[in-house]
Amino acid sequence: MDSVRIREAKEGDCGNILRLIRELAEYEKFSNQVKISEEALKADGFRENPFYHCLVAEIFPGPGEPQGPCVVAYGIYYFSYSTWKGRNVYLEDIYVKPEYRGQGIGSKIIKKVAEVALDKGCSQFRLAVLNWNKRAMDLYKALGAQDLTEAEGWHSFCFEGEAMRELAGK
Amino acid sequence: MDSVRIREAKEGDCGNILRLIRELAEYEKFSNQVKISEEALKADGFRENPFYHCLVAEIFPGPGEPQGPCVVAYGIYYFSYSTWKGRNVYLEDIYVKPEYRGQGIGSKIIKKVAEVALDKGCSQFRLAVLNWNKRAMDLYKALGAQDLTEAEGWHSFCFEGEAMRELAGK
Repeated sequence: MDSVRIREAKEGDCGNILRLIRELAEYEKFSNQVKISEEALKADGFRENPFYHCLVAEIFPGPGEPQGPCVVAYGIYYFSYSTWKGRNVYLEDIYVKPEYRGQGIGSKIIKKVAEVALDKGCSQFRLAVLNWNKRAMDLYKALGAQDLTEAEGWHSFCFEGEAMRELAGK
Repeated sequence: MDSVRIREAKEGDCGNILRLIRELAEYEKFSNQVKISEEALKADGFRENPFYHCLVAEIFPGPGEPQGPCVVAYGIYYFSYSTWKGRNVYLEDIYVKPEYRGQGIGSKIIKKVAEVALDKGCSQFRLAVLNWNKRAMDLYKALGAQDLTEAEGWHSFCFEGEAMRELAGK
């Protein structure tokens, strides 16, 4: 079996990460919504005070295989805040290429994010799941997560484009 | 009428902000969930690389009234990230004391957050609303927000406490 390493992403990974972001959006049936560019990913994640942090899973092929190491999964997270509990971590995306699933790569990324969260003094680890993605929902529940939309009735709202500019009076 | 000023919170406002956080949680019927302290609010919002930003609304009483300016509303936000659209702003809390509602103070705070968001290059302005808070839902929809839980099926999931430590293997 090829060996897997979870590591912090580098600026040079952004092209690979963007390809995986597009694959995930396709799976989620929202591929038309991906507007981000490689340049934006570089500027927002790899400057001072980054807007997000990224982990990647890299596969090292066995000896005799011609290709070099290959990025097959990613997780993007950022720090958020709860006025009830304080510091949180929010896992925006997690994705493993279909042909590399079932090897625990996703779990390794989630575990690493939870470690970072505890190290930073976070008391919650949040994420959002689509209601038809039963496999993901069941996994997170089995790992001990609570569905706050179901349990407490939270709905996500979003202003964008014209609505946002009108709010700002611009 | 008393005059209102929206300004960035200072560290010395944290006591007042915590009182308003508790009032909001009571209104949301989750007052038992507020575990945060004034010290944590100070450490997390008023050091380098703060975890949140806060606006407050201050009322200046008319001449002849004995009391000084008084904080009657707050909004707490932070920057988040979408792998589809890039930089976002997330409004974690917004609250106006009941006796000061109906004067447009909440709208002024929302407007100011939207301005900051545009200045920082954010393309989305997000927030979460409880499904029984029809007054708030109707207001945000009237202002042009989309309910992403309703429209796309997003559910909020959360790990905390033991579940989070188990994830991290600690």
